[in-house]
Amino acid sequence: MTIGVFDSGVGGLTVLRALRARMPQADFVYLGDTARLPYGTKSPDTVRRYALQAAEALRSRDVSALVVACNTASGVALEALASRWPDVPVVGVVEPGAAAACRRSPAGNIAVIGTESTIRGGAYQAAIARLRPEARVRVRACSVFVALAEEGWFDTPAAEAVAQAYLGDWLQGDDPPDSMVLGCTHFPVLTDLIRRIAGDALVLVDSASTTAEVLAERLGAEPGGGGSVQFLATDGADRFARVGSRFLGQTIDATDVEIVDL
Amino acid sequence: MTIGVFDSGVGGLTVLRALRARMPQADFVYLGDTARLPYGTKSPDTVRRYALQAAEALRSRDVSALVVACNTASGVALEALASRWPDVPVVGVVEPGAAAACRRSPAGNIAVIGTESTIRGGAYQAAIARLRPEARVRVRACSVFVALAEEGWFDTPAAEAVAQAYLGDWLQGDDPPDSMVLGCTHFPVLTDLIRRIAGDALVLVDSASTTAEVLAERLGAEPGGGGSVQFLATDGADRFARVGSRFLGQTIDATDVEIVDL
Repeated sequence: MTIGVFDSGVGGLTVLRALRARMPQADFVYLGDTARLPYGTKSPDTVRRYALQAAEALRSRDVSALVVACNTASGVALEALASRWPDVPVVGVVEPGAAAACRRSPAGNIAVIGTESTIRGGAYQAAIARLRPEARVRVRACSVFVALAEEGWFDTPAAEAVAQAYLGDWLQGDDPPDSMVLGCTHFPVLTDLIRRIAGDALVLVDSASTTAEVLAERLGAEPGGGGSVQFLATDGADRFARVGSRFLGQTIDATDVEIVDL
Repeated sequence: MTIGVFDSGVGGLTVLRALRARMPQADFVYLGDTARLPYGTKSPDTVRRYALQAAEALRSRDVSALVVACNTASGVALEALASRWPDVPVVGVVEPGAAAACRRSPAGNIAVIGTESTIRGGAYQAAIARLRPEARVRVRACSVFVALAEEGWFDTPAAEAVAQAYLGDWLQGDDPPDSMVLGCTHFPVLTDLIRRIAGDALVLVDSASTTAEVLAERLGAEPGGGGSVQFLATDGADRFARVGSRFLGQTIDATDVEIVDL
């Protein structure tokens, strides 16, 4: 079977990576809306419209499940997508990430970091409040992390200074969180960096693997196929391949990226 | 008279600021294409299409001059805009910036920093080569600077670490440039920071004031009017006002930002 995965750009490739690890036989079509990224600074209405267009493009390629590998779009567009396509499983990254944080946080002292619109949208806060009402949640938008991740600065002095600026007061303060949700698909590549500032006690939750788990449950039987991956982007095949390879963890060839118009 | 100014987002407000300082009587309409920013990572064809749409929207508001306050769009779309509207002056930021660098660089040892697509597009390199053929030009894409500027981190330890990472080898090396073009409208707010790393000898060229000078020359007579400014954006009035105020250097009220569809 073919599973459609979409994101505003290349960050969602961290989710594709987890999906392939969990369902190695499935075929995937990944769509990065690189002509219109980032979604994280755009209004909910605009993001919803973009997400519906992207999902439409994937549906036209006969996908039988849809993964919204973008926190911003998961936060604002998941219901609209699910009601438009009631016949296919539609899975976002916010609910699985929030559920994992609630399950794994020792004392329910949870921090969430993400893009500006993910944090303002409040989807993580709402999901955690529903699943673990007594949890204490603190949130922070960390927009510069996206640029660092795209630049490939995963663990440099500059990256460390930015991480200190965003997280130092929480992680080295009197009352550190016991767990932290990496609420943006770009952030998993910064795990080692954050770990180094936070120390080993902090539980770091990235929603990629939990999202893969949730989709596998929804699908029931292990999906068959040839294990292929097809890459679509709305702009810039070269950049998609170059920056995307870092997030996927394997080399993408620019000639394998098909440019589509939404 | 009314002068149209457009940019992919709020960075061009540094240019609007210089235009208003130079032509205080003129009326301005500023359009930030915030729904589709950044242009800096998009392909030339896409940027050209976006620029033509933005210019069309400004033309429909009866502007009698057009300033392309975006380096990326200036680099790839200026000819297309000028040939579409031969009856109005169309001024970009690249030629004025390059001309100022050529004029002010003591020994023609010029560095240019900008977004990925500005640097890859080569418009600054070409303009400098034309104006001062013997100049030595080195270039570097500094994408994280855009995120820093938008975050309001103009002069923090994190911003300094990022600037060191990008520019330390040039500025503190054996053969530093004698002048540097801030080839992105976001960068002027980082002037103090770069100055602190570079020292006083480096000539910093930002194209905002030279662009205002070039437009004033093209217009001839001092433009009259009421000195008004109208703000248009394609998405997110709140964010436009909040982040834009930093670049304009004065407070923008979100209720004064009109959302338009291109």
